[in-house]
Amino acid sequence: MKLLIINGPNLNLLGVREKSVYGTMSYIDLCEYILAEAKKLNVEIEIVQSNSEGEIINFLHNAIGKFQGVIINPGAYTHYSYAIHDAIKAISIKTVEVHLSNIHAREEFRSKSVTAPACVGQISGFGHYGYIMAIMAIMAQLNNSE
Amino acid sequence: MKLLIINGPNLNLLGVREKSVYGTMSYIDLCEYILAEAKKLNVEIEIVQSNSEGEIINFLHNAIGKFQGVIINPGAYTHYSYAIHDAIKAISIKTVEVHLSNIHAREEFRSKSVTAPACVGQISGFGHYGYIMAIMAIMAQLNNSE
Amino acid sequence: MKLLIINGPNLNLLGVREKSVYGTMSYIDLCEYILAEAKKLNVEIEIVQSNSEGEIINFLHNAIGKFQGVIINPGAYTHYSYAIHDAIKAISIKTVEVHLSNIHAREEFRSKSVTAPACVGQISGFGHYGYIMAIMAIMAQLNNSE
Amino acid sequence: MKLLIINGPNLNLLGVREKSVYGTMSYIDLCEYILAEAKKLNVEIEIVQSNSEGEIINFLHNAIGKFQGVIINPGAYTHYSYAIHDAIKAISIKTVEVHLSNIHAREEFRSKSVTAPACVGQISGFGHYGYIMAIMAIMAQLNNSE
Amino acid sequence: MKLLIINGPNLNLLGVREKSVYGTMSYIDLCEYILAEAKKLNVEIEIVQSNSEGEIINFLHNAIGKFQGVIINPGAYTHYSYAIHDAIKAISIKTVEVHLSNIHAREEFRSKSVTAPACVGQISGFGHYGYIMAIMAIMAQLNNSE
Amino acid sequence: MKLLIINGPNLNLLGVREKSVYGTMSYIDLCEYILAEAKKLNVEIEIVQSNSEGEIINFLHNAIGKFQGVIINPGAYTHYSYAIHDAIKAISIKTVEVHLSNIHAREEFRSKSVTAPACVGQISGFGHYGYIMAIMAIMAQLNNSE
Amino acid sequence: MKLLIINGPNLNLLGVREKSVYGTMSYIDLCEYILAEAKKLNVEIEIVQSNSEGEIINFLHNAIGKFQGVIINPGAYTHYSYAIHDAIKAISIKTVEVHLSNIHAREEFRSKSVTAPACVGQISGFGHYGYIMAIMAIMAQLNNSE
Amino acid sequence: MKLLIINGPNLNLLGVREKSVYGTMSYIDLCEYILAEAKKLNVEIEIVQSNSEGEIINFLHNAIGKFQGVIINPGAYTHYSYAIHDAIKAISIKTVEVHLSNIHAREEFRSKSVTAPACVGQISGFGHYGYIMAIMAIMAQLNNSE
Amino acid sequence: MKLLIINGPNLNLLGVREKSVYGTMSYIDLCEYILAEAKKLNVEIEIVQSNSEGEIINFLHNAIGKFQGVIINPGAYTHYSYAIHDAIKAISIKTVEVHLSNIHAREEFRSKSVTAPACVGQISGFGHYGYIMAIMAIMAQLNNSE
Amino acid sequence: MKLLIINGPNLNLLGVREKSVYGTMSYIDLCEYILAEAKKLNVEIEIVQSNSEGEIINFLHNAIGKFQGVIINPGAYTHYSYAIHDAIKAISIKTVEVHLSNIHAREEFRSKSVTAPACVGQISGFGHYGYIMAIMAIMAQLNNSE
Amino acid sequence: MKLLIINGPNLNLLGVREKSVYGTMSYIDLCEYILAEAKKLNVEIEIVQSNSEGEIINFLHNAIGKFQGVIINPGAYTHYSYAIHDAIKAISIKTVEVHLSNIHAREEFRSKSVTAPACVGQISGFGHYGYIMAIMAIMAQLNNSE
Amino acid sequence: MKLLIINGPNLNLLGVREKSVYGTMSYIDLCEYILAEAKKLNVEIEIVQSNSEGEIINFLHNAIGKFQGVIINPGAYTHYSYAIHDAIKAISIKTVEVHLSNIHAREEFRSKSVTAPACVGQISGFGHYGYIMAIMAIMAQLNNSE
Repeated sequence: MKLLIINGPNLNLLGVREKSVYGTMSYIDLCEYILAEAKKLNVEIEIVQSNSEGEIINFLHNAIGKFQGVIINPGAYTHYSYAIHDAIKAISIKTVEVHLSNIHAREEFRSKSVTAPACVGQISGFGHYGYIMAIMAIMAQLNNSE
Repeated sequence: MKLLIINGPNLNLLGVREKSVYGTMSYIDLCEYILAEAKKLNVEIEIVQSNSEGEIINFLHNAIGKFQGVIINPGAYTHYSYAIHDAIKAISIKTVEVHLSNIHAREEFRSKSVTAPACVGQISGFGHYGYIMAIMAIMAQLNNSE
Repeated sequence: MKLLIINGPNLNLLGVREKSVYGTMSYIDLCEYILAEAKKLNVEIEIVQSNSEGEIINFLHNAIGKFQGVIINPGAYTHYSYAIHDAIKAISIKTVEVHLSNIHAREEFRSKSVTAPACVGQISGFGHYGYIMAIMAIMAQLNNSE
Repeated sequence: MKLLIINGPNLNLLGVREKSVYGTMSYIDLCEYILAEAKKLNVEIEIVQSNSEGEIINFLHNAIGKFQGVIINPGAYTHYSYAIHDAIKAISIKTVEVHLSNIHAREEFRSKSVTAPACVGQISGFGHYGYIMAIMAIMAQLNNSE
Repeated sequence: MKLLIINGPNLNLLGVREKSVYGTMSYIDLCEYILAEAKKLNVEIEIVQSNSEGEIINFLHNAIGKFQGVIINPGAYTHYSYAIHDAIKAISIKTVEVHLSNIHAREEFRSKSVTAPACVGQISGFGHYGYIMAIMAIMAQLNNSE
Repeated sequence: MKLLIINGPNLNLLGVREKSVYGTMSYIDLCEYILAEAKKLNVEIEIVQSNSEGEIINFLHNAIGKFQGVIINPGAYTHYSYAIHDAIKAISIKTVEVHLSNIHAREEFRSKSVTAPACVGQISGFGHYGYIMAIMAIMAQLNNSE
Repeated sequence: MKLLIINGPNLNLLGVREKSVYGTMSYIDLCEYILAEAKKLNVEIEIVQSNSEGEIINFLHNAIGKFQGVIINPGAYTHYSYAIHDAIKAISIKTVEVHLSNIHAREEFRSKSVTAPACVGQISGFGHYGYIMAIMAIMAQLNNSE
Repeated sequence: MKLLIINGPNLNLLGVREKSVYGTMSYIDLCEYILAEAKKLNVEIEIVQSNSEGEIINFLHNAIGKFQGVIINPGAYTHYSYAIHDAIKAISIKTVEVHLSNIHAREEFRSKSVTAPACVGQISGFGHYGYIMAIMAIMAQLNNSE
Repeated sequence: MKLLIINGPNLNLLGVREKSVYGTMSYIDLCEYILAEAKKLNVEIEIVQSNSEGEIINFLHNAIGKFQGVIINPGAYTHYSYAIHDAIKAISIKTVEVHLSNIHAREEFRSKSVTAPACVGQISGFGHYGYIMAIMAIMAQLNNSE
Repeated sequence: MKLLIINGPNLNLLGVREKSVYGTMSYIDLCEYILAEAKKLNVEIEIVQSNSEGEIINFLHNAIGKFQGVIINPGAYTHYSYAIHDAIKAISIKTVEVHLSNIHAREEFRSKSVTAPACVGQISGFGHYGYIMAIMAIMAQLNNSE
Repeated sequence: MKLLIINGPNLNLLGVREKSVYGTMSYIDLCEYILAEAKKLNVEIEIVQSNSEGEIINFLHNAIGKFQGVIINPGAYTHYSYAIHDAIKAISIKTVEVHLSNIHAREEFRSKSVTAPACVGQISGFGHYGYIMAIMAIMAQLNNSE
Repeated sequence: MKLLIINGPNLNLLGVREKSVYGTMSYIDLCEYILAEAKKLNVEIEIVQSNSEGEIINFLHNAIGKFQGVIINPGAYTHYSYAIHDAIKAISIKTVEVHLSNIHAREEFRSKSVTAPACVGQISGFGHYGYIMAIMAIMAQLNNSE
């Protein structure tokens, strides 16, 4: 099984950015942590990051035929990118939305996700462990539908 | 570690109720599945269910001093029960919100959760496996904060 | 044919409560009136009342396999109980919503019903006779779908 | 007792129009069905239909002194015709609003009735039988207020 | 003079719950404080508490004929329980709404009370002393209307 | 100077309709009163009435080249007829909107006029005398712009 | 008959201020024009102006017992001064609201008047002549209610 | 192929009405232009116009069995006539909505069409040429679905 | 202890103004009543009144260093005066908001207070006795914080 | 005449993406179809596609001096890209908005276009033929303004 | 060059009022600072302050013919005083709006300015230095338009 | 001191684009003007421009450790780019938002900035001079916090 993890805008600044909200783990540490955990779960992972809405859409399109599942943390695009929503719908690959912080407990504008309706489900509030949960969730989903 | 799982209104009808949305697994099967999986994870679980908002609040209150974590699926109360929100805040036990279906992809009124802001995080859309994800999430949370 | 009539919060105070809106017939008189009229129509009726949202949901669940139809006057729960809405949907029994007063002609908040979309239809404004209309409506519905 | 039944826009296409919503009975069949049932109830009925808001208002005005009650299905005018609302108020004849489909369970704009507040009550969701219910409701109303 | 004090959801956790908002006095201390102060004012008091909306409605109904006044702190039900609103209206006993914290200075959803319009008045922000103010207010009201 | 007065839906029922709001003067009396007053002011008046939105638009169109001014009481169409709004704009004749009652002091929906923005001005709340005010206002307007 | 005319904020700049909207007549000319026309109508007039909400309320209070009617142009206070609304209600003198421009045809915020519901009626869009119309309207009102 | 073109309120005033918005071509010229162009395209056209909502609905009903397609410019009814929306849905003939001006670039209320959801598509902003585009669009549609 | 009582717009008309809402006690009687009751409570009181928003702000500013507490009835300014809100915040003196009538049970616009969030608490609906309650509340507050 | 066609996000997946909404024609087929049809119309066409909002703006800027007209299908950017709106305004080239599906008949958020107000007009719902309509519309526009 | 600086409600309490938001500089210090800086820039400055909306309007009116520019910090009136908005428009003097704090980063109600649309521009968030920026901005504006 | 100036979408078209709103100075002239003025103020400036949201975020990230302050004109992204908002917050460099035109005086959607809450402050309406004001504002800010 091969999964693509797409991280959206400002996630590259992890560990630098607002530590009280996002924790002190750096982005590179996050990636290594995910890859290590995925290895234990026997899942092949590729991680990409971009601050550009268009590039995120390209990542999604390019996943067709290469990945069985996608895990996406669309960052702030979560709240207005109907274009990413359409891309997730278009590619027909099981996609899970992940957020480090609990977006339902922050500013009003963060409680609404326009991308989640195109996903299998949403995981929010569990920090870096949320990515591992997403990997396991897709594994369960794929096993279910076999 | 001992966790309380609280299931809200209409979950007792699982397997009977709208199967296209909630699947065919019966409520008793769900409970047995969770207990079996929890055993593998070495977690002690108690599962309660009620259709009454007041009783759900009582379950939460009674968890004080007895459980290290709570997993709650508040059913439709998710969308208007500020009383359950207040109860979760009041008990100061790490609580995770779980939904079987992807509430962000259904009727407009279901996309807003008034209980999630009082929780650690929210998991939605992964069916019965969501409960196992929640158990693991609380385990990770409790290990983190030790 | 056996029908369940569920009366929601404050209906037990009928005849005591705001007589200009709800009339002077007491709750017991209402029940006797309904039972008498139902007898003429050859319909077996059971009437229950509760001020508790959870108990109303329980009444609905317990109707499964025992009643061919349900008549519900959810009182003020009409305007916010998505949990009752879900319960009506879950039980798959033909359900009719009844209101004594014309809810469309009162305070703004009463003009919206969140439970009606789960019902076959709604009858509002005809006082105690509304229950008899509901009984006849369910009879017609059941005859139609035979 | 003599009642006027006013059918609003597009009801003349019954049986032709969206059969999944409105059923397969033609408009003429509906009229004959109502007249036959009314006869059994010893009520004299006149049925008119128009697609024009102005003509519906005229029908209401002309009912003064000729009919003891009015049954109106204002079709889509239900949702914006304050002019029909004013006409119902102006004529001071007991008026009942009827809808074939359950307007509370369809598009958002159909859940609000601006004409119902001027009526005695509203019946919605019971198909052609709704008209018979309306006739009986007015009979009950008129007997009550004698 | 005999008054009923009804405390709503989560008030039983006083002293445990969010102390920065609600203070450190426990619920039992609150009750004893009220009873002691009431005694000085020569008022007989009965205090009840419930987390259940339905039970609160029952408390209100049962007050008929037994109490001259009611003091209610509906907790979070303040903001959505039209059923409690209807119950207060139904019983025709002078009722005063009390809140420990200043609900107008907290989250947006707490600034709106759906139960206050059915009460004589509202007192909010004065901690446990608010209950004594409510007792004196009802005394003044009852003396006025004699 | 020749003016057209257009009365909208339900005004023909004046004196019959809700007398507490609209007074006891009949529609015919209103017309005679206006014609008599207009004569004193040396203004030629034609009065038309219709319950039909389309016919009111036709009246407006036909005024081109025949009348120097229009006085319109659009009744309930005031609140939603953008078609009448467009008609007033299209004909380029000075038009004054008149209402018998003070529409700003009634139901919320009556406080907004979609037709007034296309008129010279609006007069509301002065009963039958409002029409005479409108005649004088147009006279003043036409004298001004000479 | 003695009437008070109250002009609100910025009306003193008439003729200076946005001439395309308010015309070229100066404020003093306006006052003289009104006084001259009122003399012809045998009405005694006093005109006051203030830019202060509080002073306008004082003017209204002081009118008690001295004037049979009030004409008020509250300027921009029209759109938010509930205090002036309350003052008009409090003094129980027939009050007419006047606006030089057609407030329904300008910026969105000007289409709503919070003061008009406390007045007999509103006249808007007829320039300086609107004041004369208001004088005549009050005369008609007072004659009517004699 | 035979198409019906229905023009709504105020279109008959074309060339007279607000020329800066709608151009200087008269309504008769428009009709002749359309008929001439349609001839070149070998399409038979019938053009009707009405200011009445009801009559427009009648035109739609009468199209059944006589026309393969309908082109409708509902004028201002576009923004509130759910009755026309229902009529288009009812007749099951391919219908195209046309607007002379770009309704998305004018007043806020014109940017919403309640009739377009019942149509195949919408064309707006291309003046009289929009009708020819609509004819060609329906031709393409009909050829496609053959 | 020395307290300042600030009464806002139109309160000077008490006893004259809408007696059904505000009672028959005159403003002078109210002042005397408060002073007499305060004397019994050993509290020194100064009462000021103004219809001007600016003057009320000045009263608040001038209270610095002279009063231990402020009781304010901002009248209609309650609903929009963010400037008074800011003034209460700025002076850092314990302030209590009082309303004679139950503002939660009147027009929609009165249910929202923009000044209450800057106060210790709000008392509404208890007539003239509300002022005495406010005095006692401030006494309790000041004793608490000693 | 030389026209630029800009296709926005996810259009490159045509034929792959949600076929029930967008049809089975692939993106390359669409381009070839357009080029072939344009040739028949003697119009030179360049087609570009991007998933990036910024690149679409660049395409628009680069069109200055090179193209007489632009046809744009902004995909989901239609609903929130004020930056594309500004770019269309900035370049002063006649631009036509095209949508394959009828955006007025889908999810609520798709019915509003923020880019259309900057365009000459909008065409929506006619599939691939919509592009040909747009080409002809620009041809007509350019011929008109010569 | 001579400029008028108008400071609105509560600014006189600077240094006393909420220091975490507005800093510790007193109002007198602020005035001296501005005057000293202005002297360096060769600009003559007059500074006035008032808590009264009406007096602020008077300040604006009196500026006509005496000042080439106005700098205004309307305090909380920024958010609702359409009367000050009208006054700025009426006097036709270049006016700049200044705020000490960043109003876009505070409570929701502070993010909207109803006075800024009448000004040349707005400066917010730069503390006392904002006034100097405003002086320089007006200097630049006046030099530009010479 | 070294500052980064980031110009957003469409600013490169300055002098070409809507001159009545944005003036006739070209983008290159603007850059040269800023660089020349900055030199006088002894500030080192780097100016970048992009139409891409993602690239603007990259510019912000790359500023870390290289610039003491950022000046950003986010163009239309101001009104919806929560991603840029997050980036400004993430980099913890003092950032000032600048707009050439007065965004509070244009279309409704431009009056709201989602990026300003993450900035020190906002300057809008002063044309090219606004950039110089921003440079001086950051200088003052940095001197203040030393």
